[in-house]
Amino acid sequence: MEVKLSYFEYASIAIAFVAFLFAAWLYKWVKKRPSSNQRIAEVGKLIRNGANTFLKKEYKTLAKFALVAAVLIFVFLPEPVWKSEDILTNVKMAIAYLAGTVFSAIAGKIGIEIATIANIKSAEAAKQGIKPSFLAAFRGGAVMGMAVVGTSLLGVALVWMITKDATTLIGFSFGASSLALFAKAGGGIFTKTADISADLVGKVELGIPEDDPRNPAVIADNVGDNVGDVAGMGADLFDSNVASMSAALVMATALDTVANNEFNTSMVFCYAAIGLLSSILGVGCARMGKKGSPTRALNNSTYITTFIFALLSAAATFIFDFNLPENGEWRIWGASMLGLLVGVVIGVASDYFTNDTNKPVHNVAKASESGPAFTILSGFSYGMLSTLPSMIGIGLSALGAYKICAPIGAATGNETLYALFGIAMAAVGMLSIVGMIISNDAYGPIVDNARGLAEMGNLGEKVLGITDELDSAGNTVKAITKGFAIGAAGLTVISLLGAFISEVNTAAIAKNIVADGVEYLKGFDIMNPIVFFGLLAGAAIPAVFSAMLILGVDRNAQRMVAEIHRQFKEIVGLKEGKEGVVPEYDKCIDIATVGAIKELIPAGLVAILATLAVGFIGGVQAIGGFLAGNIVSGLLLSLIMSNAGGLWDNGKKYVESGHHGGKGSNAHKSAVVGDTVGDPFKDTAGPSINTQITVVSLVSSLMATLFLSFSIFG
Amino acid sequence: MEVKLSYFEYASIAIAFVAFLFAAWLYKWVKKRPSSNQRIAEVGKLIRNGANTFLKKEYKTLAKFALVAAVLIFVFLPEPVWKSEDILTNVKMAIAYLAGTVFSAIAGKIGIEIATIANIKSAEAAKQGIKPSFLAAFRGGAVMGMAVVGTSLLGVALVWMITKDATTLIGFSFGASSLALFAKAGGGIFTKTADISADLVGKVELGIPEDDPRNPAVIADNVGDNVGDVAGMGADLFDSNVASMSAALVMATALDTVANNEFNTSMVFCYAAIGLLSSILGVGCARMGKKGSPTRALNNSTYITTFIFALLSAAATFIFDFNLPENGEWRIWGASMLGLLVGVVIGVASDYFTNDTNKPVHNVAKASESGPAFTILSGFSYGMLSTLPSMIGIGLSALGAYKICAPIGAATGNETLYALFGIAMAAVGMLSIVGMIISNDAYGPIVDNARGLAEMGNLGEKVLGITDELDSAGNTVKAITKGFAIGAAGLTVISLLGAFISEVNTAAIAKNIVADGVEYLKGFDIMNPIVFFGLLAGAAIPAVFSAMLILGVDRNAQRMVAEIHRQFKEIVGLKEGKEGVVPEYDKCIDIATVGAIKELIPAGLVAILATLAVGFIGGVQAIGGFLAGNIVSGLLLSLIMSNAGGLWDNGKKYVESGHHGGKGSNAHKSAVVGDTVGDPFKDTAGPSINTQITVVSLVSSLMATLFLSFSIFG
Repeated sequence: MEVKLSYFEYASIAIAFVAFLFAAWLYKWVKKRPSSNQRIAEVGKLIRNGANTFLKKEYKTLAKFALVAAVLIFVFLPEPVWKSEDILTNVKMAIAYLAGTVFSAIAGKIGIEIATIANIKSAEAAKQGIKPSFLAAFRGGAVMGMAVVGTSLLGVALVWMITKDATTLIGFSFGASSLALFAKAGGGIFTKTADISADLVGKVELGIPEDDPRNPAVIADNVGDNVGDVAGMGADLFDSNVASMSAALVMATALDTVANNEFNTSMVFCYAAIGLLSSILGVGCARMGKKGSPTRALNNSTYITTFIFALLSAAATFIFDFNLPENGEWRIWGASMLGLLVGVVIGVASDYFTNDTNKPVHNVAKASESGPAFTILSGFSYGMLSTLPSMIGIGLSALGAYKICAPIGAATGNETLYALFGIAMAAVGMLSIVGMIISNDAYGPIVDNARGLAEMGNLGEKVLGITDELDSAGNTVKAITKGFAIGAAGLTVISLLGAFISEVNTAAIAKNIVADGVEYLKGFDIMNPIVFFGLLAGAAIPAVFSAMLILGVDRNAQRMVAEIHRQFKEIVGLKEGKEGVVPEYDKCIDIATVGAIKELIPAGLVAILATLAVGFIGGVQAIGGFLAGNIVSGLLLSLIMSNAGGLWDNGKKYVESGHHGGKGSNAHKSAVVGDTVGDPFKDTAGPSINTQITVVSLVSSLMATLFLSFSIFG
Repeated sequence: MEVKLSYFEYASIAIAFVAFLFAAWLYKWVKKRPSSNQRIAEVGKLIRNGANTFLKKEYKTLAKFALVAAVLIFVFLPEPVWKSEDILTNVKMAIAYLAGTVFSAIAGKIGIEIATIANIKSAEAAKQGIKPSFLAAFRGGAVMGMAVVGTSLLGVALVWMITKDATTLIGFSFGASSLALFAKAGGGIFTKTADISADLVGKVELGIPEDDPRNPAVIADNVGDNVGDVAGMGADLFDSNVASMSAALVMATALDTVANNEFNTSMVFCYAAIGLLSSILGVGCARMGKKGSPTRALNNSTYITTFIFALLSAAATFIFDFNLPENGEWRIWGASMLGLLVGVVIGVASDYFTNDTNKPVHNVAKASESGPAFTILSGFSYGMLSTLPSMIGIGLSALGAYKICAPIGAATGNETLYALFGIAMAAVGMLSIVGMIISNDAYGPIVDNARGLAEMGNLGEKVLGITDELDSAGNTVKAITKGFAIGAAGLTVISLLGAFISEVNTAAIAKNIVADGVEYLKGFDIMNPIVFFGLLAGAAIPAVFSAMLILGVDRNAQRMVAEIHRQFKEIVGLKEGKEGVVPEYDKCIDIATVGAIKELIPAGLVAILATLAVGFIGGVQAIGGFLAGNIVSGLLLSLIMSNAGGLWDNGKKYVESGHHGGKGSNAHKSAVVGDTVGDPFKDTAGPSINTQITVVSLVSSLMATLFLSFSIFG
């Protein structure tokens, strides 16, 4: 069937609204679940208020940042305003940037809104059994999933339809990305500050259970699950999704110009829309089977969504004619399937290294008998080993997508452009099921909260057992969803490298540096020492960025531990659990909030400023190396940290379930140290690196013209 | 003055013999120091025998490996023997390879020989005071320094004079490098197995002092200092020195052909010879001043050597005419000075992050009050931060050397070749003072041993105080010497990337792929997906390699801890220190030996096999990316691990000196965990990565022809 240009843009908007309607229905469904327990309602309200307070303060700070950035963007981008021929372009760019931040913030806010209801409902539903409790939590997560993907698709489609300009879209994407960077960093610092401090004093020093209401940090801990794992994660995947579509659209636009085919952009929207549709269907199908394993239910719904997407996208490829030579439609489909496949492979590899049924977790648990140093050494080593399959997987998928799609451009001499478009579409393919991924991911903190509420509401051992099982499933599927997130970020930034070249080349023609149709920049030679310099500098940035975040958690947690100690010392009867004595929860929430907001700005800025420094000093060649080094070291470090962190977490749980002496044994004490080290590894630094590498790539594309015009050695 | 071609080759051989004579004099001087204590002599003998037993077993295993490798080299390199036009080339290559392994082994053996005498002499001399004790240890280390640099210079000069073939020289270098890889890995596993186990049971569980003779692992620990820090480190720097000279000579040979200037090779020998001469003078000057700080004495002698080298090399540049256009002699001199400067900068940066007078160590010590997890988190973070100055430094020095030296080739169109030659000469410059660096480095384990002997020989508190001070100085200067080692490895492998291209281009002409004088391979474009794939795969290798080493230590230490527990349980009166009851030291030495030899082969092979796999699958382009990824991630991880490890070590000592509660406090317990994690980081994995990246680069250059001829996707 011959397609018309705007078909899929409208279809995308339509499906986004379907997702919103579905989200609204899910929201109402969750809200209708019964709740009766007074105590749970009270605590739930504390959590909700705490999360909203943090979000408000965070958004206030970020609003200031965004406004300053918008002004700078207006003045300088895409060209300095005094040089600009059309001042409207600068205005559009600034507005697109702001729209990106606002859309991202809305997605985060919706997540908090539903998660702080679903946690209560899930806890209460656990009294009826595991299935209703699961469904309440999962559907709560799905609201978030639908909202995030719906807004991202809507946003990209709107910006595209209004401006038809890829650079402006990069501006929109940068808005989403910069907000995600700070939201992820801030939320990550908040949640781990509270989590570590609560565990350290509660579980390790005093030996009181997890989520014990006497613990002054317990509410902050539960707030943290929401602001870090829900809002932060939502912003992160919103960002990845927008960035992958933007990169694909930049390449498609470049192809429109040279290959005289304007339908490439349609394909991007086609795949994205089908992906969202598949996620809607997948979420609709999800429920726990008869065997009743929540882990299987979550993983199955991921696989079902994957399958639906494969089927529907194949059907679309069969039906629609995007006017490509050499069976181009099927080639692009193949690339996107390759992306999806590699996402699964990376997820499975991460699962192997972190699941408590496999050797790595068993060996780390055993090593813990000899002391915490051995827990750390063995866990960190397995984290390093785990990088191999994922790095090879990402490399092979990029290589495969390139080779599959290059022939499309053979007749017109556009092999490279089509090959890069193929890599971008592999990323779009990998992220096609992101609606499902987010649903699974948001499920985790909701059941984690539900567990806390069940404990604080005294719902009894049986209910706690159910929430424990649900919680553990959340941790297990995290490995797979994180694999997707990292893999997608990897492929996206590889295609953003292509987008950067494309932006530079467009600028070079516009500035009459080269004649029309000539490629100014073809690639980046490693043997060019300015590229190599960029490579080394870029590789150091994720390490510095991670270090700043972890040191932030470290400093902040030390403050909160001191506060918890103070409360246990000064509040009479608190330690003994005397009736009516409650700790000052808000003080801990306040420490986490203030600390997180203080630490997030410098860590986020360092990545952006380093990019500007390298670009203005070394020019576009240095930036090429810088981006490559940043990607390589970013993927390496985030895989190490995410997987080692997940492994330590599950290692501790494995010991707690009775192995190597169980709770209270030496092995357990060591395993707790491992878990504490792993917390900021896997929930603060590791996942933030995804966003960091995306931000750096987008900044580079945005600044392409400026780096081309002004650089010292470029 | 006009130079003749062979001047500096003969001069190098002559100066190598001066170094040998000086080493012999130092050896005799050390041996003549008095020793009277029976107990020390006995223990010293145990250490000596243990080290020799390990070395014998290790060399036996490695001899088998080397023979197999030599046969493979003969059959396949530089071309398969059935295709070779001149079978003698293959024979030469195999012999050069074996010569490299033998020279390296001899250097290690000499190190053990002197170190196990100097430790006794230094301990005994401590009874006379700190100055004679210092001098005995330092001159012992200097024997090693002179022997290593002398043999490496002699070896390179001989192979060069006999064959005049750069590829054969790469074979020699690969021999040295492969031996170093295994020696470093094996020694590193041995030493840290023993160190960790001895500390864990002795200091942590039983609370007995360091080096207490009741500890069954105490001799193994002291043996470890010798086989890991002396023999392993010697092999490592022997390797770096040979590799940097080889890389420079490969580039010089390439220049001889195209730029019609055969004097470039002379410059390499000129600089290397002057470097060794400077080290001889520097070592001769070294002694403790009136103020009596051993740290200052060591660092001063480094700076003095640096200064002598700068002066002498400037004089040589002024006097000799190497027939270069555009003031080429001074440009090369500038590049080598830049290398030297950056070595100092990296050393100073490492020193900042690990010295106990600065903020990082103080913060980590303070964080230790909150528990071991905080020690790990903060120390690891500072390790990550510490990568920035060094990565930037290495990048800038390569960039600077390139820019300084490129103009030499402007007239003849050989800018790139001269620029790469400049980078190689920067590495040669950085390693010029390696004789001094090794002397300082070998000093460390000697005084560490001396401290143990003083403890076991009951030399009393005052003597122990002296040996403690000397030991602490050894740890402090390690930061600077390690900075040099990492920086030099970085620059060397960057120039080996140039050597690889040069080898490929020579092969391409020989195989009639391109016409004479045409460059087949110019560089590696990051946007080429096969290069990018190589980049990702190469980046994963140092992580996998490190993980295997650390897991090796982990497994081995668990075995040894079990053995120590058994001895304390079964040997009556051991724990109480009953007169005449001695532990079975040899059992622990045996566990360390067997374990280390078992673990070293797989770890070493993985790097070599991965290179072959990537090369035969992806061809020369994939290898280009692979090497770059390997360098970037290797530098990053080795900086993180070396600096975090050093920081934890000094953090523990800082707490032990009375801060944050001192010995026995909670902060101390945490700091000990940090130190234990840091041990294999800084002494096993971190420094082994240097060798790993060199080996991978050399294998690639050696296999250039084969990768060019046979590869699946290349």
